[in-house]
Amino acid sequence: MKVSVGVSNRHVHLNNDDYKLLFGDAPLTKRNDLTQPNTFASELTVTITGPKRSIENVRVLGPNRSYTQVEVSKTDAYSLGIDPPVRNSGDLLDAVEITITGPLGSITRNAAIIASRHIHVDKNIRHEHNLEGVEMVSVKINGEKGGIINNVYLKDSDEAYFEMHLDTDDANAHMLKQGDEVEIIL
Amino acid sequence: MKVSVGVSNRHVHLNNDDYKLLFGDAPLTKRNDLTQPNTFASELTVTITGPKRSIENVRVLGPNRSYTQVEVSKTDAYSLGIDPPVRNSGDLLDAVEITITGPLGSITRNAAIIASRHIHVDKNIRHEHNLEGVEMVSVKINGEKGGIINNVYLKDSDEAYFEMHLDTDDANAHMLKQGDEVEIIL
Repeated sequence: MKVSVGVSNRHVHLNNDDYKLLFGDAPLTKRNDLTQPNTFASELTVTITGPKRSIENVRVLGPNRSYTQVEVSKTDAYSLGIDPPVRNSGDLLDAVEITITGPLGSITRNAAIIASRHIHVDKNIRHEHNLEGVEMVSVKINGEKGGIINNVYLKDSDEAYFEMHLDTDDANAHMLKQGDEVEIIL
Repeated sequence: MKVSVGVSNRHVHLNNDDYKLLFGDAPLTKRNDLTQPNTFASELTVTITGPKRSIENVRVLGPNRSYTQVEVSKTDAYSLGIDPPVRNSGDLLDAVEITITGPLGSITRNAAIIASRHIHVDKNIRHEHNLEGVEMVSVKINGEKGGIINNVYLKDSDEAYFEMHLDTDDANAHMLKQGDEVEIIL
């Protein structure tokens, strides 16, 4: 079964308290909708800093969440000088320290992870595609730098757009871009 | 059968004429040996420039070759603003324009490629590992971001160190580092 690809560049989710520390009362204004329902890229960016280097212009996604999380690629991690674990979004076990700087100041949090490969699903999608009870799949990628990627988690939400999210390392290694189609292997 | 991984960061090979234009009579001094026999990372670096951006401190490898070639990852290519083809080293068909700057000046050449995944072999290695007549293999990678990568070319030389070379995108996407072991699938 086919699924389309969404490429996630490095980005930040903030909780309300951390948002306030970085941006005060400034509104989290939408720049553009993302493909998942009720999610958006905001107009706001931060700088993220590790022991080795900073990366500027890292997009803040909205709406705010109950946790602050910085999602980077392994390439970013080398550049920053950090060694984050591979985690599903929201699982901050052993997430590594990173400093986030906004217009009003800086915060340092154990918040940096490399996001697991995942496919967004909801009840209807699972039913429609015979994915009920499935936790993880592999995905076949065609092309000159194709292959199979393992450990692609199915991530449930109330209402999802059926799409596989890869970080820029996975996308670039396989020469994939936003909207490309790949094949789920059960 | 197992093979160890070598990670190739972006780098430049120069022909003698282009070397002279960039470095004049300065010697191509060795910084350190590479794993393949008779190859080395030199003390010299260049800046590479595409339409969008430059990348500094790009290592010149030695010895010089009969062709000038700039090997980048897809991540580098986005940064530079170029769209290079995936090619075996030395195959510069449709290689894209890039400017290389050294201490004595700049040259612009159709020289930028993304190197194909490849495994270095020689006659003895092919014989020892039953790889005679094999052109391409797949490779299985374990771990949290594991999978299978296809289109891994066997690259012959007179004397080789048995090793798979991946660019930083492939290595980082799969969380591989120099010296890791992976499994060849015939």
